[in-house]
Amino acid sequence: MSPLRITGVEALDVRFPTSRDLSGSDAMNPAPDYSAAYAVLRTEEGLDGHGLTFTIGRGNELCVAAIRSLSPFVVGRTLESITRDMAAFWYALTGDSQLRWVGPEKGVIHLAAAAIVNAVWDLWAKAEAKPLWKLLVDMTPEQIVACVPFRYITDALTPEEALEILRRNEGTRAAREARMLKEGYPAYTTSAGWLGYTDERVRELCREAVAQGFTHFKQKVGADIEDDVRRAALIREEIGAGRKLMMDANQVWDVEEAIASVRRLAEFDPYWVEEPTSPDDVLGHARIAEAVSPIRVATGEHCQNRVVFKQLMQAGAIGFCQLDACRLGGVNEVLAVLLMAAKFGIPVCPHAGGVGLCEYVQHLSIFDYIYVSASLEDRVLEYVDHLHEHFVEPVRIENGRYMPPQAPGYSIEMRPESLQEFAYPSGPAWEGGA
Amino acid sequence: MSPLRITGVEALDVRFPTSRDLSGSDAMNPAPDYSAAYAVLRTEEGLDGHGLTFTIGRGNELCVAAIRSLSPFVVGRTLESITRDMAAFWYALTGDSQLRWVGPEKGVIHLAAAAIVNAVWDLWAKAEAKPLWKLLVDMTPEQIVACVPFRYITDALTPEEALEILRRNEGTRAAREARMLKEGYPAYTTSAGWLGYTDERVRELCREAVAQGFTHFKQKVGADIEDDVRRAALIREEIGAGRKLMMDANQVWDVEEAIASVRRLAEFDPYWVEEPTSPDDVLGHARIAEAVSPIRVATGEHCQNRVVFKQLMQAGAIGFCQLDACRLGGVNEVLAVLLMAAKFGIPVCPHAGGVGLCEYVQHLSIFDYIYVSASLEDRVLEYVDHLHEHFVEPVRIENGRYMPPQAPGYSIEMRPESLQEFAYPSGPAWEGGA
Repeated sequence: MSPLRITGVEALDVRFPTSRDLSGSDAMNPAPDYSAAYAVLRTEEGLDGHGLTFTIGRGNELCVAAIRSLSPFVVGRTLESITRDMAAFWYALTGDSQLRWVGPEKGVIHLAAAAIVNAVWDLWAKAEAKPLWKLLVDMTPEQIVACVPFRYITDALTPEEALEILRRNEGTRAAREARMLKEGYPAYTTSAGWLGYTDERVRELCREAVAQGFTHFKQKVGADIEDDVRRAALIREEIGAGRKLMMDANQVWDVEEAIASVRRLAEFDPYWVEEPTSPDDVLGHARIAEAVSPIRVATGEHCQNRVVFKQLMQAGAIGFCQLDACRLGGVNEVLAVLLMAAKFGIPVCPHAGGVGLCEYVQHLSIFDYIYVSASLEDRVLEYVDHLHEHFVEPVRIENGRYMPPQAPGYSIEMRPESLQEFAYPSGPAWEGGA
Repeated sequence: MSPLRITGVEALDVRFPTSRDLSGSDAMNPAPDYSAAYAVLRTEEGLDGHGLTFTIGRGNELCVAAIRSLSPFVVGRTLESITRDMAAFWYALTGDSQLRWVGPEKGVIHLAAAAIVNAVWDLWAKAEAKPLWKLLVDMTPEQIVACVPFRYITDALTPEEALEILRRNEGTRAAREARMLKEGYPAYTTSAGWLGYTDERVRELCREAVAQGFTHFKQKVGADIEDDVRRAALIREEIGAGRKLMMDANQVWDVEEAIASVRRLAEFDPYWVEEPTSPDDVLGHARIAEAVSPIRVATGEHCQNRVVFKQLMQAGAIGFCQLDACRLGGVNEVLAVLLMAAKFGIPVCPHAGGVGLCEYVQHLSIFDYIYVSASLEDRVLEYVDHLHEHFVEPVRIENGRYMPPQAPGYSIEMRPESLQEFAYPSGPAWEGGA
């Protein structure tokens, strides 16, 4: 590996005015402007690492500022000095004694850490001339374990157990890699079920998605139960009994209200109920899961770190783990969660959509299948057909499946024209104000 | 009440170079610079509301920026339009659909919300010409309940239960107020036990604190168990068997390590063990609490919001609730936690020290005693003798007790000279750099 030295970090505020057409509207987030706090690690050698953290508009400036606050932890370092002990780097970045106070490991500071961590992995993968998933697949179990922050999770998963999990399916790994390259990873669509759309538009989008080969559909619920029931009936009518319907409440319910609402919607056979209540409420999710069984609970896009995922798994609170590639502190912490999920036997169906999340998570799920879970049962990866045109290497969906990216890196690099056009607040897209 | 209109919010970055003398050093925070992200709500009428959130240095700039991001929610509003429905105001400030994404209700954005919420309460108390604790004591139970954000906690506490708790001790409230005015609220000192001090200095500080009337002492532990044992023996020798010794690990242990360490330190009869592990680990705290019983677990200074406190109480994970006046989203969310603690029978011993925290929490504990818990059993309020000289109305300690503040407001207004001297990075205290 070449001794790439990081000479500077650029932090950019990039926002897409998605609130103008109600794309992405749900019960908690009526008018999001999909945004990225975007980090570029510059090196003298001309190879740059790109990473972003996803937000929905206001507040993106705070993540951008936090990327700047964290940049001293990478500027001046060589890539090799970081990758030789990735866990140590991760602890240094997330554990600075002063910055830690404004988290710890959560919210603005952790979102920013994710952008930087992911940019380091992007740089590493580019330096190795491999897509990120392949960089991970080619590591030894020991090398992967050396990247994982085990702090605060050793009561659920020790390094020894992680090694055992990673070695478990070694013999069949190549076959799974070949299968991914041929068939891709199954996707589901959230594009049809946004609250802001009319019933007629939802019907159209369902038909289109069925025609494209999708088998799993997601409906946003939680604003009004009568609307939810009507909309569920309509979607079920369009997709038929054989396809799966997920319901996403985006945290709007209290615990007892969630239980009552899910029971009401049970007749439409939801595959999962997503974010029924506060993302901080492990015990609340556990109580809901018990009350609505056999309908399973899914959550994770707002799950702040591995410590909360650990508890969701320990408590039997989730049937699906929807980790987020940049709400968690980047690839290192994602690895911790993938390994815990494997231990607890919980399928990982990452959060995607937004901007850049699909580009990120395809790598994670493909790696998870090849190296960790070795299963596609109950695994399906979110897909939203928005904003991919802004990426240098956008996701490629064929027959409702994510096809493994081939270009070196983490697929998260945005096109320079897009970075300029959607720069906030100075870019042309924002002329005339927000 | 006069129709005070908030015309602007000033957000100031104020830092004290406390790392230069190792005040406040512990196992997680070896060199803090006690800092405040400081908010001033200006009104045309000349009465200003002051609030701050406490940090330990780097990262304070993010909270200052977040105060600016939140300021549109108060600028232009009259005080009366806010106080007429305090819960609605609190939800609007913490629930903005875009800003919520970078929390929700945690980390930088929630710390900043606390500064603004507390500044509103400071302004309200000043407008009523009462210290904050007295403003609260003079409210009806219905008025208090109308300030509480019940979202996500109704499975543990309903508004009806809160009313019942607030009415329970109405008849004896005046007697408790008189007792507070006469005797004050019991304090304990953390000044003696910082890790950065030599054994000799710890002995001296213990003797001084005993002479000042303190009966509870706190020791920092967790860097090295042999040092912890030696230091505990030394402090126990100085304070004798009759006084209480608390041990604070500042989150350094994993769950099993915490259990082993506490068992090792049990011979020194700790009154509580504080922050044994990650503040996010409700189930971990529950497991530790069960394993080290009858030694009780205390936590809260990093407990991000009412949802996590709810679970700590539901799980039987804590024997003491150490809420923080500005880690929680200000007075409104503190009220929610005080009421849950009363329901679950858990004594509240707020986190203090830092800068401004003692000034804040005296109001909360005095109100808690007079109106909510009606008990001093197992209640003791942290006190650290640092940085009080920077406040217009500093705390007053007599015989190891906090004497109730009399000046209108929340006691958090800093002296203009201090705001100027310690402005970061431009103030004279920071000349020559950090």
